[in-house]
Amino acid sequence: MAPVAAAAGPRAALVPSVLDEYGGATRSVLARYLPDEEPRAYLYDLVADYPRRGGRAFRPSLCIATTRAFGGTMQDAILSAVSIELIHNAMLIHDDIEDESEQRRGKPALHRTEGVPVAINAGDALSLLAFQPLIDNRGRLGPYLAMRILEETERMARESAEGQAMELGWRRDNVCDVCEADYLEMVLKKTCWLLAIHPTRVGALIATKGAVDLERFIRFGFLLGAAFQIQDDLLNLEGNAEAYGKELGGDIYEGKRTLMLIRLFEQATDSERTRLERLLGTERAARPLDEIAWVRERMNSYDCIGYARQVAHGLAGAAIHEFEHAFTGVRDSRDKRFIAALPKWVLSRA
Amino acid sequence: MAPVAAAAGPRAALVPSVLDEYGGATRSVLARYLPDEEPRAYLYDLVADYPRRGGRAFRPSLCIATTRAFGGTMQDAILSAVSIELIHNAMLIHDDIEDESEQRRGKPALHRTEGVPVAINAGDALSLLAFQPLIDNRGRLGPYLAMRILEETERMARESAEGQAMELGWRRDNVCDVCEADYLEMVLKKTCWLLAIHPTRVGALIATKGAVDLERFIRFGFLLGAAFQIQDDLLNLEGNAEAYGKELGGDIYEGKRTLMLIRLFEQATDSERTRLERLLGTERAARPLDEIAWVRERMNSYDCIGYARQVAHGLAGAAIHEFEHAFTGVRDSRDKRFIAALPKWVLSRA
Repeated sequence: MAPVAAAAGPRAALVPSVLDEYGGATRSVLARYLPDEEPRAYLYDLVADYPRRGGRAFRPSLCIATTRAFGGTMQDAILSAVSIELIHNAMLIHDDIEDESEQRRGKPALHRTEGVPVAINAGDALSLLAFQPLIDNRGRLGPYLAMRILEETERMARESAEGQAMELGWRRDNVCDVCEADYLEMVLKKTCWLLAIHPTRVGALIATKGAVDLERFIRFGFLLGAAFQIQDDLLNLEGNAEAYGKELGGDIYEGKRTLMLIRLFEQATDSERTRLERLLGTERAARPLDEIAWVRERMNSYDCIGYARQVAHGLAGAAIHEFEHAFTGVRDSRDKRFIAALPKWVLSRA
Repeated sequence: MAPVAAAAGPRAALVPSVLDEYGGATRSVLARYLPDEEPRAYLYDLVADYPRRGGRAFRPSLCIATTRAFGGTMQDAILSAVSIELIHNAMLIHDDIEDESEQRRGKPALHRTEGVPVAINAGDALSLLAFQPLIDNRGRLGPYLAMRILEETERMARESAEGQAMELGWRRDNVCDVCEADYLEMVLKKTCWLLAIHPTRVGALIATKGAVDLERFIRFGFLLGAAFQIQDDLLNLEGNAEAYGKELGGDIYEGKRTLMLIRLFEQATDSERTRLERLLGTERAARPLDEIAWVRERMNSYDCIGYARQVAHGLAGAAIHEFEHAFTGVRDSRDKRFIAALPKWVLSRA
């Protein structure tokens, strides 16, 4: 795989350039796994919808880069990378239903156009399709390694479901005493496993055929992923709607337990806390717009946003430090430099 | 495995006795795959709910019986059987949401008590848990056979999702010209693969280590499964509510395209057809009770129920015939006799 021209440019351009390159490779193989057959209108057109909307391909690129950094090749990793991207998209379909999200990647969420029943089923089918490349791994990697990757995938998906369960449960039962440690545990499961822990574990597993201890990637992936999630939540509050691709401020509407909301609960006066609790206990559709604006204003007044930004910076700094441990002994390469640059990059996303 | 006493009794008792025995074996191993850990209230208690409500264990029993009929052992098949039962339960959770079902096995459907978001996520987690025993198959069956079973599982689950997509799509778009051939194709995918085709294919695969051509099981499983589905739909109309475990007549409310409804559309006068189309085009909650009763009465008047019963009998008869082909060369055994007795048994269910 020839390095693209931009890779020779300044360090700041490294991350987008690798994402472009590895994302493109992933997308072209991924397309082969989207069935071109009936039932189209009720299933396979829908299954292909989110993947075709694009996205940064962060997760598959991290998997490919880790494989290469540890001495493997793009071809060793590509099917696992494709699977990761398919699973990510499948989870988005169900997450959007569960979170009652309106938009995804700048267009209506799938269940908004197709209805909840058909969309749930499309999500199920897409997550099944993600298993096919993992089965096909057998050809290049052999059945033992292919099974190990399946095992890793099952673990990752379970962690994700556990994290999602925590978040949905808190919201449904209007749990208002979530502390920062609870929040970070939830993010570890819901976000970090799929975003960073799994791609690095699988990459190293492929390249070293299981010779490297995979536990070392949990801490790095957690720190990187948590910084990513907080930045994502910050963008939901104050990002650029077009670049962000989802409705701004939607998290407050959805009652999502973000670090900013948790901080607000901690800082608020008793009467403010009561008002907040009552608002979040109201059905989503019945939440008055001016109350949402009030929450936003209180978050400003207590500088919850500044606080969250600080925490994200702290996590990203720790991720840079942890990177040295996770990738110790790995010789310098463009792929290694790409991964090293990710903690700073996740904070710079707009 | 010692044959239970009842197995020595009259032929009619053979099916329930094998279901009891193999179902019991499946449930005891299955219990080990239900995590006893947090998050309980928002995830693992819910994941364990449907499996603990019981059920006939038809699918895992058929898998075990096929393995044994082809010369394998209960132990060779048990993990695959457990996985089949887990997948079945996972699908029930999502199906109940998609079909807006109220009850399951005599109790409220999961999403009725937990809400749709938490229930979708629990269904996702349960279907993930179904992969663990298939990965664990590696130990006894080796990685090649374990991978082949995973491949079969992926195929089955995709067929199921395709069938579910067809049914949901017809309902959502109020498609009123579904013909019997469309219906049977949908049932082949939605019901027959998981109920009968997959368990027999996997059973024979395990016992013969891939030496037998699996295509022969498609026709037998289709005929058996289609008879089963039609009988199930008949029970929804006129079964015993307690034994059935779901709300009676719910299918008409849900606008489900059953053979009886399709027959009614074919037999109805133009004005009746228009009335029916309008009723099914109304939102579920707005469908008047007396209109539902009218549909029921028209089905009686055109003897749609008698017609469906006849078709089910024809399919079951063909299944008995096809059994001889699918199990040709397999020597007589209690397991073979159990499978041979299934077509008649599915029609006798009350």
